[in-house]
Amino acid sequence: MVNYDLRSLLAKLRIEKPLIHNITNYVVMNFTANTLLAMGASPVMAHAVNEVEEMVSLARALVINIGTLSDPWIDAMLKAGKMAEKLGVPIILDPVGSGATTLRTGTFKRLTSEIRPVIVRGNASEILSIASAGITTRGVDTVHDVEQASDVGRKMAEQLECVVAITGPVDLITDGQRVIRCNNGDTMLGKITGTGCAATATIGAFAAVTKDPLQAASAGLAYFGLAGEIGASRSKSPGTFMAALIDALYEITPDEFAARARLEEG
Amino acid sequence: MVNYDLRSLLAKLRIEKPLIHNITNYVVMNFTANTLLAMGASPVMAHAVNEVEEMVSLARALVINIGTLSDPWIDAMLKAGKMAEKLGVPIILDPVGSGATTLRTGTFKRLTSEIRPVIVRGNASEILSIASAGITTRGVDTVHDVEQASDVGRKMAEQLECVVAITGPVDLITDGQRVIRCNNGDTMLGKITGTGCAATATIGAFAAVTKDPLQAASAGLAYFGLAGEIGASRSKSPGTFMAALIDALYEITPDEFAARARLEEG
Amino acid sequence: MVNYDLRSLLAKLRIEKPLIHNITNYVVMNFTANTLLAMGASPVMAHAVNEVEEMVSLARALVINIGTLSDPWIDAMLKAGKMAEKLGVPIILDPVGSGATTLRTGTFKRLTSEIRPVIVRGNASEILSIASAGITTRGVDTVHDVEQASDVGRKMAEQLECVVAITGPVDLITDGQRVIRCNNGDTMLGKITGTGCAATATIGAFAAVTKDPLQAASAGLAYFGLAGEIGASRSKSPGTFMAALIDALYEITPDEFAARARLEEG
Repeated sequence: MVNYDLRSLLAKLRIEKPLIHNITNYVVMNFTANTLLAMGASPVMAHAVNEVEEMVSLARALVINIGTLSDPWIDAMLKAGKMAEKLGVPIILDPVGSGATTLRTGTFKRLTSEIRPVIVRGNASEILSIASAGITTRGVDTVHDVEQASDVGRKMAEQLECVVAITGPVDLITDGQRVIRCNNGDTMLGKITGTGCAATATIGAFAAVTKDPLQAASAGLAYFGLAGEIGASRSKSPGTFMAALIDALYEITPDEFAARARLEEG
Repeated sequence: MVNYDLRSLLAKLRIEKPLIHNITNYVVMNFTANTLLAMGASPVMAHAVNEVEEMVSLARALVINIGTLSDPWIDAMLKAGKMAEKLGVPIILDPVGSGATTLRTGTFKRLTSEIRPVIVRGNASEILSIASAGITTRGVDTVHDVEQASDVGRKMAEQLECVVAITGPVDLITDGQRVIRCNNGDTMLGKITGTGCAATATIGAFAAVTKDPLQAASAGLAYFGLAGEIGASRSKSPGTFMAALIDALYEITPDEFAARARLEEG
Repeated sequence: MVNYDLRSLLAKLRIEKPLIHNITNYVVMNFTANTLLAMGASPVMAHAVNEVEEMVSLARALVINIGTLSDPWIDAMLKAGKMAEKLGVPIILDPVGSGATTLRTGTFKRLTSEIRPVIVRGNASEILSIASAGITTRGVDTVHDVEQASDVGRKMAEQLECVVAITGPVDLITDGQRVIRCNNGDTMLGKITGTGCAATATIGAFAAVTKDPLQAASAGLAYFGLAGEIGASRSKSPGTFMAALIDALYEITPDEFAARARLEEG
């Protein structure tokens, strides 16, 4: 078991309701905002080049997601990211669909060379595609073997000097040295769109209340995965599951979170 | 009690199904369209500079919402607004996140100097931020004390020559002279994203069927608040509440609306 | 009865999970992605001019939808469409709100002159507006008499050398010679936004697994309509109906589809 005080972390989040600035894709904006609100954070979505610096200066985390990308949004991501870095606001990066197109893979590379995320969260195919030119991502909801990505994640974490979180049947979270496995989750999470993006936002919420990115990423994935388990216990069909998932994100208490998170070293 | 014939107003809306043109933010587009459809109006979303004038000429109200703003959208808002004014189509303005950034506060000022909305609907912090440079909005879902904003709302209504509606635990609607209080609503409405924006759209739907903007704003907030009460009686968790809210927006009959609206003078 | 092997077609879709590239409107992106995922396809949304060619080359169908249109999106639609044609990826076109504005009607004309969709799906007013300058569409959720559009559809199918699908109380699908009627569906589908767009995406999913566009369009509308019937048997209010519809899209088995599809010649 990993020795994190998850009870206090969630309690802190619920009290402080940190503002999370999201520059994210059109498909998941509503779902992401509702995820953050349900768990106790305060979401804001803003992407204009002429307001992102001000917005991020009010926020306690910046979540950048490269789905439905276009050039003006990349400019805003860079501008917001640079201000976030200057102010010490943690940046969480989600390379949605990386590997599928040159624009997405290239944008990930550009973002990580010009700004420094504290956490990168992707599925195995996305993470593999970034590290290796030989792998092609198929859409945005593909899942490769997570184990296959473990070594790659570790190396990427070292190289980018950040935490890398790879989600799949089992989630791996690594800072390049330590590796934490998260066993929370349910296959129903793959049946609706945007759960990867929402998991990244959940990590952003925890990154606002702890300075330890390995803890933030682990807590976020355990929390979101637990909500998925609870949602799936209520519905095995995606429409009603989506509502049940948001319900669970709202209902989980600090005690329940501490009791049911399944994080382990290695 | 306020002496509005809410039964007839809703009955008229259900029969006429007025087209409401929305230039609104990405986060709430789907939810807003479903809100308008559920209550009996016909929504359309269009933001291209080269079609908004034509679109608004087919519509019976124009709802402008400045969340997820960017420059091309501001141009479209102005163009649509000017045509709406020319044609006598009522403009309803929602200053989402005003006070958070210079772009948003400045856009509100620009919009209200170049076009004349008949109704402005915001939460207390947004309305306060517009009136006073010293207040900073925290995100888009913050709620200040509504009473604190009452005087400000009245003055703003006088200055902008429009109705100002300030939503919170109690909603205040004023044309600068009369003040109407709406006691409908439920705290669950603060647990999902876009309820402020959807309430503004609801006002737009009523503004399409009455020429009295004080009545339209009062009816809209009473209607949306009542739907929130009914939704909250069915679910106290946000995912299922969101569905229950849309259900209620569809189910409320003219008789039920007239019986359960809680509007009072002062 | 029409002699399609719908059981095998759906079974194939479930096994192959074809990637469907959508260039669609903001309002329905989330709902469309969830529709495709629920039925067994793999959705991706991408609209940047500098990635659509690569993205469509990974896809097995391209769905173009002109709601919430603007100029950069039109460029992307053309670029993606030309690449799709070159690669033999079927293009399915949804003229949302055509007839309402010159931009939308003109874009439909431009798209059909520069690229060749294999299937066009619209409601009667949209299809009529394209064929005739004298008809004005009211918003995007209007329903005219489908019969009224039958002749027009046939002529348009001949002229554009594609299949035209006109949805309404009864759906008509024609390649200019044969006409297939689909009797699946429920009036509840008109109570939520985006069901037309989602039906078009459903057609796109079937077009990925059969080379016969008349079959793909018929199967798509029968499938989506059947899901609407099942959803409406569970809820008669739009919020919970939306969830029930997505559930049904996921739950329908190949056997159930074959048994309950109501397609007939003529």
